[in-house]
Amino acid sequence: MARFDFTIRATDGGARTGTIAMPRGEIRTPAFMPVGTAATVKAMKPEAVRESGADIILGNTYHLMLRPGAERVAKLGGLHRFMNWPRPILTDSGGYQVMSLSDLRKITEEGVTFASHLDGSRHLLTPERSMEIQRLLGSDIVMAFDECPRADQPRDEIARSMEMSMRWARRSREGFYAGGEHAEGAALFGIQQGALDEELRRQSADALVDIGFDGYAIGGLAVGEGQEAMFATLDFAPDQLPADRPRYLMGVGKPDDLVGAVERGVDMFDCVLPTRSGRNGQAFTWNGAINLRNARFAEDTGPLDERCTCPTCATYSRAYLHHLVKAGEMLGAMLMTEHNLGFYQQLMQAMREAIGEGRFAGFATQFRREYLNG
Amino acid sequence: MARFDFTIRATDGGARTGTIAMPRGEIRTPAFMPVGTAATVKAMKPEAVRESGADIILGNTYHLMLRPGAERVAKLGGLHRFMNWPRPILTDSGGYQVMSLSDLRKITEEGVTFASHLDGSRHLLTPERSMEIQRLLGSDIVMAFDECPRADQPRDEIARSMEMSMRWARRSREGFYAGGEHAEGAALFGIQQGALDEELRRQSADALVDIGFDGYAIGGLAVGEGQEAMFATLDFAPDQLPADRPRYLMGVGKPDDLVGAVERGVDMFDCVLPTRSGRNGQAFTWNGAINLRNARFAEDTGPLDERCTCPTCATYSRAYLHHLVKAGEMLGAMLMTEHNLGFYQQLMQAMREAIGEGRFAGFATQFRREYLNG
Repeated sequence: MARFDFTIRATDGGARTGTIAMPRGEIRTPAFMPVGTAATVKAMKPEAVRESGADIILGNTYHLMLRPGAERVAKLGGLHRFMNWPRPILTDSGGYQVMSLSDLRKITEEGVTFASHLDGSRHLLTPERSMEIQRLLGSDIVMAFDECPRADQPRDEIARSMEMSMRWARRSREGFYAGGEHAEGAALFGIQQGALDEELRRQSADALVDIGFDGYAIGGLAVGEGQEAMFATLDFAPDQLPADRPRYLMGVGKPDDLVGAVERGVDMFDCVLPTRSGRNGQAFTWNGAINLRNARFAEDTGPLDERCTCPTCATYSRAYLHHLVKAGEMLGAMLMTEHNLGFYQQLMQAMREAIGEGRFAGFATQFRREYLNG
Repeated sequence: MARFDFTIRATDGGARTGTIAMPRGEIRTPAFMPVGTAATVKAMKPEAVRESGADIILGNTYHLMLRPGAERVAKLGGLHRFMNWPRPILTDSGGYQVMSLSDLRKITEEGVTFASHLDGSRHLLTPERSMEIQRLLGSDIVMAFDECPRADQPRDEIARSMEMSMRWARRSREGFYAGGEHAEGAALFGIQQGALDEELRRQSADALVDIGFDGYAIGGLAVGEGQEAMFATLDFAPDQLPADRPRYLMGVGKPDDLVGAVERGVDMFDCVLPTRSGRNGQAFTWNGAINLRNARFAEDTGPLDERCTCPTCATYSRAYLHHLVKAGEMLGAMLMTEHNLGFYQQLMQAMREAIGEGRFAGFATQFRREYLNG
């Protein structure tokens, strides 16, 4: 079985569609990866995640290293067995969350020392340790360890950070291949940094290609810069990365973000938005997002979305979901999450089909007309 | 189709097994009814509730009259359609919860005036209004409206309350049959009161039989009197009720409560325990209840119960459930609830089989040995 074969089946403008073949299964691209932070896609059984159309999910190194612990997951047979998800799992490196969630961070060339947000215990995360943790988890797609600076920093700070991330990328690759057998079944992605700066992004891309990775992520976006600045960066960043390798835009995004990024050559995404919004009573539809807390849904017998094929839309009315959300019932979070993940996967499938049939520009125009004016 | 046919297939000592045939489906007895308070069995999809083995669920009049409102449920096509449960639903009368949950109660011969615990709005619940609400919900088994006094009250207070409940029972029957078409598809149960007093229970049973009901509930137990006092009451209360009608012990209970009550002639039960405990990390097993928060489960690769056939036990380890419960993940509540409901239904099925095969005494002895000493 192929360790990692990326095949582009069709291109349409900047957009591409294809497949990534891996030992644990095939990933159709453009792909959306639901986030399974703590060894669970929140409020979803894994079989329902699969039925929604997901080929791969994401796990968070930072959360899992703290609870239940990477060594414990390994002892229990690895993350796939632990959480009953037999298909590919991509794990992040912990770099982003150690910055955003932990306390008392100290960053040096060696790595990041931090205190757990759960119990205050002290930890050191380095490129080598991040690779070891992702190996212990049994990750299929391992992410290089990087620093993700805020986009509003001075340019020389962005440059300094990016250059350290590139040194960490090299150490990540060395650590990954030191993992031996695991590296034979897993793939390693590098992460481009450089914030919104074209020249820094170019330098970062060149450094990563020089090291050599199975795929390339675009990091440091979706950190508050806004869609316009993100799209302006995506007008050049994907093209700086090898055309024959998957490009993964980390932490993105809203449905219209996905369409605009696919248009610009991105192949993979992850985001907590469909799951988190679902738990908060927000549903995504082809006519925009709606909040089920709104009293106007109290006697609405229609489904969340007329065109959606998810189990929630096949069975339940907006009136019932309004009731569950208002009453704070767990079933509301379950059904809304299932819908949102289903909608996201249906959107990815519609994009894959439109690209394959050479009509992506028309699809994107119609999507935006309906979604943004719904 | 039969409106309400109770057939006793076999008896074994005081225990009975049989079926209740109703237009929306058959109920195997002894039956355990999961509680679906606010039009949802918490953390469960209705299809999973059915797959666990439930033939009937319970809905709460008090909660549903306040949110989303009985008239609204009727407008939306009734409770079955609203919540996607096509099988029988038993609704309580609101009498118990108006006492335990509402504010500013005032009880008169007419009924109970109270303030909603949700928004403080004022409501009047009477036998007639309770029948109307249960009709609007589309209930299959309607409960008479009663007062449920605390068991530690003086005997004359218990007697006074029971006598008023019997007058309310007669008004309930009149209100129920005034409902016309609904009454043709639904059944009405009376509720015996009298706390722990054999003579008051006798008077209550005689009053109910004089009015005439499709089934008879034993109310006013499981309110803090303890298992010994409850069993002492069940040594006489079921036999005071007609042998050819179902006997329903309201709000009970723990697995060993169920076995002891079936032994004493009870046919139906409802309780929040399996669902509420599941959300709190407690699992029921053939060897007793276990709390998954306990650190001893952190690396336990076994299922919750070796003999359980529920989806949770088929798939997930105690170690994974320990992780989910500790992390406060919704999936933990979902999987634990599914197990507990599955375990309760497997216990009911085992009792039905043991009664049918004339070996219930041996079953009960072995159950208690394993469950209480596990």
